[in-house]
Amino acid sequence: MGSVFGSKLRISVFGESHGAAIGVVIDGLPSGETIDMEEVYRQMQRRAPGGDKTATPRKEADMPEILSGMLGDKTTGAPLCAIIKNTNTRSGDYGNLLAAPRPGHSDYAAFVRYGGNNDIRGGGHFSGRLTANIVFAGAVSRQILKRRGIDIAAHIYSIGSVCDEPFEPTGISDDLIAALNTEKFALVDKSRENAMRAEVEAARMSSDSIGGIVECIVQGMPAGVGDPMFGGVENIIAAAVFGVPAVKGVEFGSGFAGAALRGSQNNDEFYYNDNGEIRTRTNNHGGALGGITSGMPIIFRAAIKPTPSISQEQKTVDLQQHKDTTLQIKGRHDPCIVPRAVPVIESAAAVALMNLI
Amino acid sequence: MGSVFGSKLRISVFGESHGAAIGVVIDGLPSGETIDMEEVYRQMQRRAPGGDKTATPRKEADMPEILSGMLGDKTTGAPLCAIIKNTNTRSGDYGNLLAAPRPGHSDYAAFVRYGGNNDIRGGGHFSGRLTANIVFAGAVSRQILKRRGIDIAAHIYSIGSVCDEPFEPTGISDDLIAALNTEKFALVDKSRENAMRAEVEAARMSSDSIGGIVECIVQGMPAGVGDPMFGGVENIIAAAVFGVPAVKGVEFGSGFAGAALRGSQNNDEFYYNDNGEIRTRTNNHGGALGGITSGMPIIFRAAIKPTPSISQEQKTVDLQQHKDTTLQIKGRHDPCIVPRAVPVIESAAAVALMNLI
Amino acid sequence: MGSVFGSKLRISVFGESHGAAIGVVIDGLPSGETIDMEEVYRQMQRRAPGGDKTATPRKEADMPEILSGMLGDKTTGAPLCAIIKNTNTRSGDYGNLLAAPRPGHSDYAAFVRYGGNNDIRGGGHFSGRLTANIVFAGAVSRQILKRRGIDIAAHIYSIGSVCDEPFEPTGISDDLIAALNTEKFALVDKSRENAMRAEVEAARMSSDSIGGIVECIVQGMPAGVGDPMFGGVENIIAAAVFGVPAVKGVEFGSGFAGAALRGSQNNDEFYYNDNGEIRTRTNNHGGALGGITSGMPIIFRAAIKPTPSISQEQKTVDLQQHKDTTLQIKGRHDPCIVPRAVPVIESAAAVALMNLI
Amino acid sequence: MGSVFGSKLRISVFGESHGAAIGVVIDGLPSGETIDMEEVYRQMQRRAPGGDKTATPRKEADMPEILSGMLGDKTTGAPLCAIIKNTNTRSGDYGNLLAAPRPGHSDYAAFVRYGGNNDIRGGGHFSGRLTANIVFAGAVSRQILKRRGIDIAAHIYSIGSVCDEPFEPTGISDDLIAALNTEKFALVDKSRENAMRAEVEAARMSSDSIGGIVECIVQGMPAGVGDPMFGGVENIIAAAVFGVPAVKGVEFGSGFAGAALRGSQNNDEFYYNDNGEIRTRTNNHGGALGGITSGMPIIFRAAIKPTPSISQEQKTVDLQQHKDTTLQIKGRHDPCIVPRAVPVIESAAAVALMNLI
Repeated sequence: MGSVFGSKLRISVFGESHGAAIGVVIDGLPSGETIDMEEVYRQMQRRAPGGDKTATPRKEADMPEILSGMLGDKTTGAPLCAIIKNTNTRSGDYGNLLAAPRPGHSDYAAFVRYGGNNDIRGGGHFSGRLTANIVFAGAVSRQILKRRGIDIAAHIYSIGSVCDEPFEPTGISDDLIAALNTEKFALVDKSRENAMRAEVEAARMSSDSIGGIVECIVQGMPAGVGDPMFGGVENIIAAAVFGVPAVKGVEFGSGFAGAALRGSQNNDEFYYNDNGEIRTRTNNHGGALGGITSGMPIIFRAAIKPTPSISQEQKTVDLQQHKDTTLQIKGRHDPCIVPRAVPVIESAAAVALMNLI
Repeated sequence: MGSVFGSKLRISVFGESHGAAIGVVIDGLPSGETIDMEEVYRQMQRRAPGGDKTATPRKEADMPEILSGMLGDKTTGAPLCAIIKNTNTRSGDYGNLLAAPRPGHSDYAAFVRYGGNNDIRGGGHFSGRLTANIVFAGAVSRQILKRRGIDIAAHIYSIGSVCDEPFEPTGISDDLIAALNTEKFALVDKSRENAMRAEVEAARMSSDSIGGIVECIVQGMPAGVGDPMFGGVENIIAAAVFGVPAVKGVEFGSGFAGAALRGSQNNDEFYYNDNGEIRTRTNNHGGALGGITSGMPIIFRAAIKPTPSISQEQKTVDLQQHKDTTLQIKGRHDPCIVPRAVPVIESAAAVALMNLI
Repeated sequence: MGSVFGSKLRISVFGESHGAAIGVVIDGLPSGETIDMEEVYRQMQRRAPGGDKTATPRKEADMPEILSGMLGDKTTGAPLCAIIKNTNTRSGDYGNLLAAPRPGHSDYAAFVRYGGNNDIRGGGHFSGRLTANIVFAGAVSRQILKRRGIDIAAHIYSIGSVCDEPFEPTGISDDLIAALNTEKFALVDKSRENAMRAEVEAARMSSDSIGGIVECIVQGMPAGVGDPMFGGVENIIAAAVFGVPAVKGVEFGSGFAGAALRGSQNNDEFYYNDNGEIRTRTNNHGGALGGITSGMPIIFRAAIKPTPSISQEQKTVDLQQHKDTTLQIKGRHDPCIVPRAVPVIESAAAVALMNLI
Repeated sequence: MGSVFGSKLRISVFGESHGAAIGVVIDGLPSGETIDMEEVYRQMQRRAPGGDKTATPRKEADMPEILSGMLGDKTTGAPLCAIIKNTNTRSGDYGNLLAAPRPGHSDYAAFVRYGGNNDIRGGGHFSGRLTANIVFAGAVSRQILKRRGIDIAAHIYSIGSVCDEPFEPTGISDDLIAALNTEKFALVDKSRENAMRAEVEAARMSSDSIGGIVECIVQGMPAGVGDPMFGGVENIIAAAVFGVPAVKGVEFGSGFAGAALRGSQNNDEFYYNDNGEIRTRTNNHGGALGGITSGMPIIFRAAIKPTPSISQEQKTVDLQQHKDTTLQIKGRHDPCIVPRAVPVIESAAAVALMNLI
């Protein structure tokens, strides 16, 4: 697998934080699909740092350049490749000697995996910046899914100990979906924004960072999609979502909380709605039973760990001198990536869904 | 995908609850590996119903028959196929008309997916009985992994609101691993057993069921295993573990709890241990950084939903008469599958790991 | 890869010549498909040795037993597993010491690959007997394809230097397809049969064997099926057909002969036929242009090497004593497997096509 | 599948003939491999049109730009993306209305496959120009293979009716490999060059084109590589080589000619050579037995159809007016791509081998 995902729709992600460019090849797109690239760019801006006071001050253009697969505003059916050039590259500057791995980062694991040959500048291929490619692929996919009646939205379920109103599990309004899809700080209950930003600010003031949870809903999926066992909706979404570097947990429907429930509480009763459609009154199953969609919204949550980059002094090891040492990471860091993770999680879900429908 | 998992080691699971047999083909096993089939059977007995007072009274032999891939007690390198014959099959008895889908079960989703052609008897291919195949594949894999220094153990982290002592994240003793690997009711702190069984018994007395959480640890994985993004340890384990029907959530290391932490709390500091090996003092990352192993134990938890089969009357729909109705599931049901899920989760992890090493 | 093929329809083949059973799991079949198992058995009889005077005298039942995936005469959509029990197995008789690898057989390559642990009795997993599984999977697939208007037929294009009339590249009659589909010695021009059988008999009388070519046609494939580059019709058919042990070459349309032609000779001109459909007047392209079907029949040929099992004394090596030696293979051998290869090649094509439509 | 190939080493090819750029992502490369990019460019020049009097006059730079995966001259282990910018692109010029499909080209099949949305300019994604990406991936792979003792070479086996001296099946000299690897018109017997060029010139003078056969050898592969059935050396090489647009046939060892032989002629006898290594005296098996390498050179031939682009008037259909018509393709065309196909076939083999070792 590595940086390739999917069977029906395959994305191949490439790039390193300080390399010439990052990008993605999307193979298997249907042809003749109109793609609104302005909308794609808007989604990418939701992920891009800057433009929001909680985000990292580093400015990145995140302006994708389409190399193939589009003719005018339509997909040709050939692989679509988009790249984003890096602007802060200094060629020839290969200061690649890993001295002290940053705690919580991939530095040490990658050092062993690649025998010290990986590009360590800015985290290389492990940089969160690579998620821009996922957002690109997801933003293209979401326009195609929407045309088939499938909408995706997500919100900041929590940052630290401050929670948003959860999604109504049986479905949210089209208006809320539309609103969330344009937000850089996506909340169901916008009155929680101040408390959340305070949580982030408190972390920043302590030279620290803070994690959170993103909740994502997929509406409009017909019943009967997915395969049993390893081809289920949950498997495929989880395999994609765990591709987002900071994700450490994925749960569907009642998830971990459901594990403490009785069957009589967790089972979702079926009924015929006014349109003669079969629905469930609750949605603890999160839209998938036996791996297959039930026709109810797919709901899942992804745990986002606190950004490991913090300005505090931390203990680590000196790989060259083989002894313990301390490390202080320089520069300014985004104390909370949860708001920016919202479009990334939506996008990973979109790419997964393109492999299911 | 469907019922096929893996690239290096591929398992193909087949069978229906009341069909002639269930089984699994394991393709890609190394040759010349001695497999202790008695030990495989013992692992399968840990999953099998019966033999424990909390489990379902239905008796299943779960005795696998090896059709290929073994010569004496050694793998030949050719695909290993094992089948388990069903004893309660009545051929010709195809009462396959789905009247009322059971809440929380795959009945309705499968009905739509397969146009009513799926074998509904006992849940067909979606039956928990199919996990016997995963345990078989896992038990074979675990013997091979153990020979490479890799151990897997799991325990009942919680049933309902009663919790076991969690695993020490930085590692557990070989004795504890050995003990857990033989248990049908696997606990770190055996003094919790009575409280847990009381929780199960209370559910049973209410004609109800109860869920729980399984925690799994993998020890002995070297650092540097796994690929970035979609080829990470977490992606591959999650893709396998979500193949276990009742699993609704998977988290690694501090997981969802870590999402509420500060970076300074969640980051794991590196140090050189007395053997000159690099370790982390804590293990909130759960053994994988950037998808790649760090050399620390891999720790994950899987949320197991309460068994949907309960004896209480439940509301559902009548698919033939297109109206709401009620349903009372007959027979005696296992009020808590969490103890039996322990070897299944271990096995799913083992199959995943065979695709990583 | 190994003994697993396909993405949309995945077959997993298992078994060893003298093991307990051989079999195949077919994952991804559509549900609700009526399968005439009698017809499946008839196809398997076309491959089975015996019942024809050119074939091996060894009697094999080749009677598959369905373990899963069928309810009555319909597919359930769950994986279909069929096994064929071996009748000449002697359990405990593991005379597995490879002394002298048979020239032209997989013995030596497998010995190195599996470190001597592979089951060498009868060729183990490499036995031609394993192709019974491919015929089973193909025979099931062909019934589904036929319902979608797609027919497959093949004939003995040549044995040694004796050739049949080639297929008319622009298409053959339904009657010819129907007739060929029931033959054990499939020829377009049945008057060639005597000459061909004489070729086989001459080989047999010399304690020798003889090779041949199978030509296969697929009719009814709509235009526009397949993907560019590595997802083309040719790639997928070739990847399946080279899975048949004796195949050493695959060519489409004019193939190797076309390589000697001018463009003006090899190009196939388009025209509108009387039904207003676009067709080509010739079919040198063999039904695929750029990997994608053109609406013309898919035509390909597979080179079948002469059976390596011959009764003559041959030079080989003694692996135990590390010196050159001679070998005389005991028993009676099929001097020409080409007639029996016909349904195998058809079946490999059928499985490939199920991954394309 | 589509334009993605491989499991261990995955290449994802993108681009359209007249789009902004073509390129390839190579995922799964080992890290720390020194790549001589000058040598890569030299291999690409062997494929590039121009610089040889038999080739097309169109000038293409074919100068790849590395976007990721390299640090200095070493692979980082992250996906390597290389692009080649197109210089003759006119943005906004989307004259995409397919009037008359060119005989022998993918035009019509792609028109149906993509509903007329594919980029038809210069053949779009089906252009032979895309094979530059395969050569790039192959040239990188070959340097890695060479470091592991594996060499690949190919030559023009035939053009039209003029044949080169075939490779000695049991192996060719390192000097010949080295010489062939630098040639634009690769022949074993250079005295045949004039006759071959005359064959090409005759086709050109007739406003026609001519096909040919490329023969490829892989030396240094150890015995015991590959998997049975669908994971064999032949399957994987064929699946890659059929990804080269003009290839219509692939055969290994004695191939189609072997189908006319007796077993006693085609079987390759084993012997111990002077170094105590097991070899075969002949190599009709082409290096693979049962799909697994025997330690002998892998030899295969690929049939290259005559370039379908010819200047003669040809009959075709008018897709807009739904009637028969004639077509005269404008511009100057390469009358024989066989010399340029040599490095492409070598490269496809190299990519396939990276998935085997």
